[in-house]
Amino acid sequence: MLQPFEYVNDKLMVLDQSLLPQQKVWLCCATALDVATVITAMAVRGAPAIAIAGAYGMALAHNRGDDLAVAYKALIASRPTAVHLRKTLARMLTVLDGDMLQEARRIHEEDRAINQALGKVGADLLPAKSSVYHHCNTGALATGGWGTALGIVRSAVEADKGIHVWVGETRPYLQGARLTTWELMADQIPCTLVTDSMASKLMADGRVNAVLVGCDRVAENGDVANKIGTLGLAIIADYYNVPFYVAMPLSALDTECKTGSAIPIEDRPATEMTGFDDVTWTPADVKAYNPGFDITPAKLVTAWVTERGLWHPLVGIPD
Amino acid sequence: MLQPFEYVNDKLMVLDQSLLPQQKVWLCCATALDVATVITAMAVRGAPAIAIAGAYGMALAHNRGDDLAVAYKALIASRPTAVHLRKTLARMLTVLDGDMLQEARRIHEEDRAINQALGKVGADLLPAKSSVYHHCNTGALATGGWGTALGIVRSAVEADKGIHVWVGETRPYLQGARLTTWELMADQIPCTLVTDSMASKLMADGRVNAVLVGCDRVAENGDVANKIGTLGLAIIADYYNVPFYVAMPLSALDTECKTGSAIPIEDRPATEMTGFDDVTWTPADVKAYNPGFDITPAKLVTAWVTERGLWHPLVGIPD
Repeated sequence: MLQPFEYVNDKLMVLDQSLLPQQKVWLCCATALDVATVITAMAVRGAPAIAIAGAYGMALAHNRGDDLAVAYKALIASRPTAVHLRKTLARMLTVLDGDMLQEARRIHEEDRAINQALGKVGADLLPAKSSVYHHCNTGALATGGWGTALGIVRSAVEADKGIHVWVGETRPYLQGARLTTWELMADQIPCTLVTDSMASKLMADGRVNAVLVGCDRVAENGDVANKIGTLGLAIIADYYNVPFYVAMPLSALDTECKTGSAIPIEDRPATEMTGFDDVTWTPADVKAYNPGFDITPAKLVTAWVTERGLWHPLVGIPD
Repeated sequence: MLQPFEYVNDKLMVLDQSLLPQQKVWLCCATALDVATVITAMAVRGAPAIAIAGAYGMALAHNRGDDLAVAYKALIASRPTAVHLRKTLARMLTVLDGDMLQEARRIHEEDRAINQALGKVGADLLPAKSSVYHHCNTGALATGGWGTALGIVRSAVEADKGIHVWVGETRPYLQGARLTTWELMADQIPCTLVTDSMASKLMADGRVNAVLVGCDRVAENGDVANKIGTLGLAIIADYYNVPFYVAMPLSALDTECKTGSAIPIEDRPATEMTGFDDVTWTPADVKAYNPGFDITPAKLVTAWVTERGLWHPLVGIPD
């Protein structure tokens, strides 16, 4: 299975997802600050993947004898919306006297097992021959392997359910068009690319059986912070009575945030919207607004799918 | 004011909107088939603009002594969703024995007057200091001048209302990012570019006072065919109780279509979605679905704004 990074020779090698699928370039991170930089630049992205990368970043700092407080602060600032990263860095701080690299590797391995368990829970929700709509990239590239929302797809395919995926391109960063198509095509899972603005027509035409998304953070009341565009999909799915499922590893739950309004939303650079690669399509000096995430209210979520079953804000973590 | 085309020396010169704003290339149409080709290629787009271009196309065929039936069929097939084009070509057929060029010029001049009248009707609906969300391009480039939905913005600005425009980039063809930003910036009307997927966050945050869109065709019951993405905006606006206004020149009304389901939707090439210019960002051989338009049900429309006041399916054309 495709991996977003690999720890070798005291370095974290990170596959630069900003260049995929056209180029496969591996970036070499020797320090925690290098890891923070590649997270900010979205060379590695996806809440579970950046949490694991952050863990390796702490291990790098520890092994080099760098200031761990500086490393921690740089990593936490690299993606403020995600809570998985913060929780994982906190876990790394509990093994200050132990083998931090071993702990990072353990976190990496655990993530894949969590994804596969979550995938099975979610796959049970999908009827056979489902056509699902998927936003952003939540696959092997966004996690330690398998995926969260795409992990549900993988598990459903493994169970021979005959799944087709509508891949929302996910502007501005095109994670769907670049990464999700690539992952699904590599696994020969049938998929069709659409723009984000086509989701409503697909649902109006009765061509979507479920919407599957991941999450960067879920508040105690069930509000979901996820990639920009998730909120609109949830409103449209609600309008057409299409189930809206959030793949939520329990690490994404933040009971310290009572509601979604307490979750910080990262603003991203305008350049992500004004062109691609060395091509610019807007007028020079155009003003742009680029929030990286939005908040979907709990009432629009049909189910929160975790590695331990379905979670609900009024019921809590499954036994 | 910017013009999408100009008739000179027995040719229709068409500004290639697929290359704007980076390059200003004028295409020379000597025949009606040339005009059909530039409409299909979206070098000229916008329901009113293609209707006027079609009228000039008929004049070209007439002046050259070409087969008018062939010319008519090629032009009608170039954008099946629009009804304005069909009505305008029918009008041209009523002057077969007259001066077809003069008729085309009259149609061109009338369009601008219609737009300005519609603009004033719509501007009255907007409170002072409004922030409006606009989809696609409905400005001078999409019409004979002034614009339909953007004409409402221009009229409101002329009335000193202090308007700010959220410009939805409008994937896949980026009419918002490329053309609407360019028109608004040229007229120094404050505007901010967003991706289509950000509209819901803007409305959730209370930053949109009205959504303004144009239309390619409106059915007798008020259902609206317009650029893909319009339906999703209407659902989201309804969810947040934001007024959703359709700028509808009466030429866009098709009483022969009882409901929106009778309006044909054009499928566009996948290449509009897989990259831009000479850059490709998807995997090779990705499967894509690219419907150019969607149908917004009448119940989601707050008002249909015409050059003669507000239209309503239960009341009909204003006196």
